[in-house]
Amino acid sequence: MATVRPVALKAALTRHGRWLPPPWALLCRPNTAVRAFSSVMSPPSTAVVYDDHGPPDTVCKVKELPPLQIKDDDICVRMLAAPINPSDINRIQGVYPVRPPVPAVGGYEGVGEVYSVGSAVKGLSPGDWVIPSPPSSGTWQTYVVRDQNVWHKIEKSTPMEYAASVAVNPLTALRMLEDFVDVKSGDAIVQNGATSIVGQCLIQLARDRGIHSINIIRDRAGSDEAKEKLKNLGADQVFTESQLEVKNVKNLLADIPEPALGFNCVGGNAASLVLKFLKQSGIMVTYGGMSKKPITVSTSSFIFKDLSLRGFWLQKWLSSDKAKESRVMIDYLLSLAREGKLTYEMELVPFNQFQSALDKALGKLGTQPKQIIKF
Amino acid sequence: MATVRPVALKAALTRHGRWLPPPWALLCRPNTAVRAFSSVMSPPSTAVVYDDHGPPDTVCKVKELPPLQIKDDDICVRMLAAPINPSDINRIQGVYPVRPPVPAVGGYEGVGEVYSVGSAVKGLSPGDWVIPSPPSSGTWQTYVVRDQNVWHKIEKSTPMEYAASVAVNPLTALRMLEDFVDVKSGDAIVQNGATSIVGQCLIQLARDRGIHSINIIRDRAGSDEAKEKLKNLGADQVFTESQLEVKNVKNLLADIPEPALGFNCVGGNAASLVLKFLKQSGIMVTYGGMSKKPITVSTSSFIFKDLSLRGFWLQKWLSSDKAKESRVMIDYLLSLAREGKLTYEMELVPFNQFQSALDKALGKLGTQPKQIIKF
Repeated sequence: MATVRPVALKAALTRHGRWLPPPWALLCRPNTAVRAFSSVMSPPSTAVVYDDHGPPDTVCKVKELPPLQIKDDDICVRMLAAPINPSDINRIQGVYPVRPPVPAVGGYEGVGEVYSVGSAVKGLSPGDWVIPSPPSSGTWQTYVVRDQNVWHKIEKSTPMEYAASVAVNPLTALRMLEDFVDVKSGDAIVQNGATSIVGQCLIQLARDRGIHSINIIRDRAGSDEAKEKLKNLGADQVFTESQLEVKNVKNLLADIPEPALGFNCVGGNAASLVLKFLKQSGIMVTYGGMSKKPITVSTSSFIFKDLSLRGFWLQKWLSSDKAKESRVMIDYLLSLAREGKLTYEMELVPFNQFQSALDKALGKLGTQPKQIIKF
Repeated sequence: MATVRPVALKAALTRHGRWLPPPWALLCRPNTAVRAFSSVMSPPSTAVVYDDHGPPDTVCKVKELPPLQIKDDDICVRMLAAPINPSDINRIQGVYPVRPPVPAVGGYEGVGEVYSVGSAVKGLSPGDWVIPSPPSSGTWQTYVVRDQNVWHKIEKSTPMEYAASVAVNPLTALRMLEDFVDVKSGDAIVQNGATSIVGQCLIQLARDRGIHSINIIRDRAGSDEAKEKLKNLGADQVFTESQLEVKNVKNLLADIPEPALGFNCVGGNAASLVLKFLKQSGIMVTYGGMSKKPITVSTSSFIFKDLSLRGFWLQKWLSSDKAKESRVMIDYLLSLAREGKLTYEMELVPFNQFQSALDKALGKLGTQPKQIIKF
């Protein structure tokens, strides 16, 4: 068994003495190069680290982190893939209300393969595919060491990119569809930002339940193509915002019933359009604000139309009791992905091209598929 | 027994053949002067009638309506008093979503004394005080004939002006305080438009339950006096909007806990101020829009602060099953009024000065007490 240099071992032990601070807290210490590691130590991890909050393309650096001790209940996972989600960007920018203390490793979800397990670990073995569930910070690295409770085993036949990205966007879509209004087959929902991953998931989850979807997208070059794509996913109606500059948007619905449930991830005019489609006593759930514009609502919408406006934040939901159910939901969503009933465009990008993937995720190159880092 | 001219009798009978159209539908017929009336006919009624929707001071006319037949289950009530509520104004203007067909008699609530009863009426006798409950259109007249089920008997020791005005504003305050959040003694609420009748009722109902109230009023001449009045009613804190132009309004709360429930009857900036006071996962209920400005909300208020925005409309609530409880609530509110625990400023105005009362209610003479027509 190879020896471990005392300084690094002490640091690792300290970290494991209590669950927090997380692995990247080690970065505060001199990065003593430990190349040799024992079976109770993880391999060193190559990670996307930010020392301060700021523009992600400036503050994110790829660094090598020293090995970590693998305690009896720990599992060391070799990461396979992890997405760059908008909320990851916001965490790095420092504009997210909950964020890990810096220095920190980026990323919040992903999929990996069990590399080695602590002596007390049961039910998971090297080679198993796992995801951190509920998701947690620090997935943009090659090796992650966490307690066995953190890891949820998934079927290895799952397409890697869906396993990597299921726990944030698709789960958000599923929860929002189930938690606010009891929508049934034959009912309808309405949403803006329909080309987002959550938007695409909502369309497909609705279709799978016989629920109609009314979808609003931005006016831009290629909107006809975007409409076609969403219709192929099962969207009943897709409108650009300008198409909805009519006296009564409901006249455009044909046989689709008025929706009682709407979703807003844009704000501004696009949110007002969702409200216009809603039926009496309908609910609009806000889960994003891509336009960076607020939501403006008339008094009569509340009093006479009896609309309710709510919000959804997965991270808060995951901190509630209900989160226990989330692994069942993830299994369900991944089964849909395996059956081809839940699809969305992704681009798998090798880890050594991280900066390029980040630039795409930041929107520097126009609309791009969801970027998934492949380790 | 005096005879009744055939034309008027036929009209009355036709009206009574079905519950609708209401008494004022008679206005469509020639107003044959019937001065003589039998015991099965009501006296003629002097009423505030509007033939078309429009500015209330233009379209409202005082007219004499012919006697109505009093059927077996009917009660003829001599009206004692009825308020001019903002919603009465809106109904006449035609901007209210539900309004009686014109020509119509104004008013929606009031108190009266039983004048005569049909042969099948039980439990009510001439001299009893009654209010229409749930309230319904057409109270601005001297005699109202309706089915016995419409009338709710109240204690004659009740101050007339409170009996006349209990069924809209105080009931709105009570329902809003009970229906959205379970606020308990020691908790707090926040509201704008605190000088409104509903606002004043909320302060007093809260105080009676040991609930703190944080109150927002307009900046205007006399705001110090208004603050003092509200504090005398039991308001814990009263701020003008400009006093709340601070970085964190919650620093102004001293020992009062953050409120989980807020009320908005103003819109615009005043609504934003209510939202600022609310605690995590709080609810703001909109029941009016005095500024005529919409409500603007940030995306993060929904996602990260988890606020909910709802609306309340008494007329809708009264059409629900829960409305059965409303008479118990009215008795409770009137008992508070009799005990002096529920007070608000009113001005009793003789019916022959209706136009002057209407001008005051329309705000032509600045801030005025609630106008109550005394018949």
